[in-house]
Order: sequence, then structure tokens, then C-alpha cells
Amino acid sequence: MKSLAVGIDLGGTNIKGGLVRRDGSVIVKKSVKTEVQKGTGPEPVVGRIAGLVADLIAEGGVDKSELVGVCVGSPGPLDSRRGIVYETPNLDWKDVPLSDMLAPLVDMPVFVENDANVAAFGEQWAGAAKDSVCTIMLTLGTGVGGGIVINGELWRGVNDVGAELGHMIIDYAGRLCGCGAHGCIEAYASASALARRMKEQVEAGSASSLRDAILAGEDVDAKRIYDAAVDGDRLSREMIEETGRLLGIAIVSYVNIFNPDCVVLHGGLVNAGDMLFEPLLAEVNERCFESSLRVLRVLPSALKGDAGIVGAAGLAFQRAEDIA
Amino acid sequence: MKSLAVGIDLGGTNIKGGLVRRDGSVIVKKSVKTEVQKGTGPEPVVGRIAGLVADLIAEGGVDKSELVGVCVGSPGPLDSRRGIVYETPNLDWKDVPLSDMLAPLVDMPVFVENDANVAAFGEQWAGAAKDSVCTIMLTLGTGVGGGIVINGELWRGVNDVGAELGHMIIDYAGRLCGCGAHGCIEAYASASALARRMKEQVEAGSASSLRDAILAGEDVDAKRIYDAAVDGDRLSREMIEETGRLLGIAIVSYVNIFNPDCVVLHGGLVNAGDMLFEPLLAEVNERCFESSLRVLRVLPSALKGDAGIVGAAGLAFQRAEDIA
Repeated sequence: MKSLAVGIDLGGTNIKGGLVRRDGSVIVKKSVKTEVQKGTGPEPVVGRIAGLVADLIAEGGVDKSELVGVCVGSPGPLDSRRGIVYETPNLDWKDVPLSDMLAPLVDMPVFVENDANVAAFGEQWAGAAKDSVCTIMLTLGTGVGGGIVINGELWRGVNDVGAELGHMIIDYAGRLCGCGAHGCIEAYASASALARRMKEQVEAGSASSLRDAILAGEDVDAKRIYDAAVDGDRLSREMIEETGRLLGIAIVSYVNIFNPDCVVLHGGLVNAGDMLFEPLLAEVNERCFESSLRVLRVLPSALKGDAGIVGAAGLAFQRAEDIA
Repeated sequence: MKSLAVGIDLGGTNIKGGLVRRDGSVIVKKSVKTEVQKGTGPEPVVGRIAGLVADLIAEGGVDKSELVGVCVGSPGPLDSRRGIVYETPNLDWKDVPLSDMLAPLVDMPVFVENDANVAAFGEQWAGAAKDSVCTIMLTLGTGVGGGIVINGELWRGVNDVGAELGHMIIDYAGRLCGCGAHGCIEAYASASALARRMKEQVEAGSASSLRDAILAGEDVDAKRIYDAAVDGDRLSREMIEETGRLLGIAIVSYVNIFNPDCVVLHGGLVNAGDMLFEPLLAEVNERCFESSLRVLRVLPSALKGDAGIVGAAGLAFQRAEDIA
């Protein structure tokens, strides 16, 4: 049985890669700039992925014959079975047959998965949710991504557009979401939504140590809001606590729907720690059924920035065996 | 391979039973009164279930050796693996080992499942969602029950309290739900919630042909509201249309979460037909991702009142083979 896999985490800014063992441990990891140039087509980026795979094998000092294959976690929507990326605005891609393009360059099986699904799989395979029966994962970033792992398998939906957990509606007459619907949790609890809500409060006249920066048009992101909260800014703290409460409400619904044993939260916002988790867990504990709470753990990501490469490698093992 | 199974639909008022073939067709069905008497324990009701099974075999003119077993759909919460019903207020049951009590009386394998799960399985096995990959089912009654069938298997949750689809929150600061949380879809769109919202409107002064009956304290249920709407009562029509819109909003979330190919609606309220489905589908079509809509069908139950017996029989076939 081949003992290694390469996991690739493809983003608009960086391509991260890792050479990973069957136990989820990383032998070597490396990243390169994505360097998207509009209008050049996907070839240059696919070439850089192939180069990264070659570098990982060389730096790991391993033989290519020990690898089961490569899995690339990519922004979606995509067709995970055929390995086609339908659309990624950040990469300027449209209907790119990534598996078919990359496989001849690396000379081994190539699999493609949605990046949020990859991270969820990683946490269940070798992270915070290791050995869980049902993991629900939320990735808090520009949006709110989601992943569902049941009995060790991703649930991708009938045509690969499931697990859009950020587009569960928590307030049907509420904030307009980027998807066009009203009241999705993404419109409230992504890192970007936190910054937006903060800006609204300041513009409406609320006091804050970030007031001048925000009114001057500076880019005040979730990290800066957290730092201000730690430094004693009350509004910043309130905004983070509210984010926790709203995430808690969304998690109540996921728990009532899935009765999972693990909910994992991922993304920089998770570093807010207790400031986010205390109000979040208060909602979960108050609103969920007692029997669901008996099996439930709500945890921060254990793999953090490596979730993408580790999860992708884990999927390469699983999917290579499925086709074997 | 044994060709028949018995499905039992256990309710607080009636016990329904059916002798069912492997293709989901019903050879004979029958029902008896449940006749719950507080304080007598579960034996009398379990005895009546056994009697019903014997009658079905006799009336069907079949040999007992042709049966794989019996599955009972029961109100929950329950342990489907061990066949224990934890609590059913309507039956005055507490921790009843239903499988172990019934099996010796009928002398064949007995399985127990949550009734909403049974109905969902029935629709996927032999009803509106036949051959679907992912079915989400909502049962609109006193509450809103749910069932999830993925790749032909029920998803029951880690400890059998999943698929509580009625307790997904659509308005986190909204109506208080029976579960103690605010804004669950059950608090808006069950048949009982429809009657409650109608009553509130009338008490607040809205005109309706049902006004006198409601103010006189009569039991004006969903059926009567529908009849009044058909007879031209504007408020009744508005209330049913609003129920459709709110169900549509909930379905958008289920679709974004599961990306199912089938959503089935079950229960008397479904008889409202277009009056319910038109506003419901308008929300779904407006708010869902186009790619999800490509595979999605939203359908009324095909099995209707037989969903419980057909679904239970289908589960008896599946579960008998699992243990074989």
C-alpha cells in the first residue's frame, strides 16, 4: 500500500502544498505565489502546481512510486467526479478540466475537491474531529464555507453544490446576502460581515477606538477588531460576541438537522477564542435538545492553516483507493 | 428471498398496519384503535400490535415464513438500534423495549424507527421520491417532522435525534417554539401554527368568514381554514400563502445544505395544493442557487396516509437484510 499523498490548497494568492503520510502527518510543506494573470488561461497556474508537486517529492527525499496521487482543493463550484472547476473568479477560471490537465504533468492520479469540503475532511481525518461519526465544519472568512462528513465520507450534494452551510437562513427578513437571498448566516458571521457590521455601528455614531480609522476609510478587518476588543474597546467586543451568538444560533439548526458529534470552526476569526466561543456555546446549550448535546463537541480547527493540504492529501488516499 | 414485510404505523389514536410486497405495493391494510389507558403500561398496546400483525397475515392469506419481519414506526425519541422507545407522551410510554416485547409475540424480527423517518424512507423507497439520491421530507402536522434519506439510507443522527428539520431556525428573534428556542420553522408552518396565526389575526381585528367561529372558541383547524379560503375568505388564503412562503424559505436552507434531488411534503396541509405550493416554489426559485435547482424537485407525498406502513415495511426489508 502506497504510503504518501500530496495535498494542494489552491487559493487566489498562494498555492500551498504538502507531502503527507497516511496518519495525516506532514513530511514537508511549501507554498508558491499563484500569480494569476488575467487572460492567460489556466496553464501557468496548473504548471506551478505541477512544479510544487515535483519540489515536494524532491525535498521530501521520497520516491514517486510511494505516492497514491495528488488532490487539489480548489474554490468552486466544481465537478469533483470529473475534476472540472466550473468557475473561480479569483483565478479567472471557467470550466477548467484541472484533473485532466494536471495528471499528465505529475504522472499520477489527480483528484479535485471543493476547498471547504477539503478542510472539513481534513479535520475529521486527522484534526479536531478525528474519528467522529458526523462532522459539520464552518469556515469563517470572506464568506462562511461549509463541509459535511458522515461516516468518513464527504456529503457533497447530488450535483456537488451541497454543504453551502453559510447560506442557511437565520433571519428570513434580514440582511441581504451576496447570494441574493436575505438573512443567510454568511451575511452576519463571516469575518467580512463582522467588519461590515462594525463599520455600520461606527457610521451610526457608536463610540469605538477604531472610529477614526473606520471613518478615514482604512481597511479595519476582523483581526484589528479583535485586537481593539482585547485592548478594551467595548464596541469591538460586542460585535465579536454578537458574531458568536449568531454562529451559535446557526449551529443549533445544524445540530437539530444532523445530530452531529462534532462541529468544527475554522478561519482566523476562531482566534478570538472565548470572546467568540462563550456566547456561541451559551446559545447552543440553551437552544439545543439535551439528547443532542450529550454527543456534541464544538471545537476550533486543530489543523488551522494546514487543513487544506492535510485534508486534500487524506482525500487523495481515500479516492485513490475508491478507484483502485 | 422472503417477499413480504409488515409495516406498522403506531399513533396515539390508531395503529395502522400493512402487509407489503418488495415493490412497495400493499396486499392488505388494516387499523385498530390504540386505546391508550394511562397507568396500564405498554403491554395492552403491544398486544394489539401483535394481534394486528396476525390479522394481516390471516387476511392476506400468506404464510408467515414469507415474511422478513415487522417494523414499527413510533413517535420518538427512541433508540432505533435497540428498539427502545424512550418517551411518547401520547402513549404514556417511558423507556419501552418495544422490539424485545413484540418479537416473541409475533415470532419474527422486529425493528423500530421514528415515525417521521419511516415516512421519509417510504417516499424514497416507493413514493414521490422513488430512486432519488437525496430526499428531504417534511411532515406538516401538529409539529413539523423531518426525514433525511441519502443513497437509500436514513440519516438518523449520531444518537438518533437528527432530522429534526422542524427545529431549523428561520427567524432567530421570532416566535417561541415548543422546543424552547425562538423562530423554528415548526412555530410558523405546522398545521397547528397555521391555526394559531389565523387566530392571532382574527383576535387582532382582521376580517374573516371564520371570525365568529374563532372568537367563539371553536376548534378552527387547517382544513377549515383551507375550506374558507376556497370559499373566498381572503384572510384564510393569505395565511395559507404565508405558510407556503415560510416553508419555501426553510426549503431554501435545506437545499443549500443538502443539495437534494427531492423535497417531499407530507401531511393534510399539503392538500391545499397550489395555494400552498405556488408561493413556496416562488421562494425556492428566487433564493436557491441555479445549479441546485437543476436537480431539485419539490413534491407532495405520493403515499399520503400509507407512508407510515409502506415506509416501515421497506425498512423491515432493509434492516432484515442488514442483520442477515
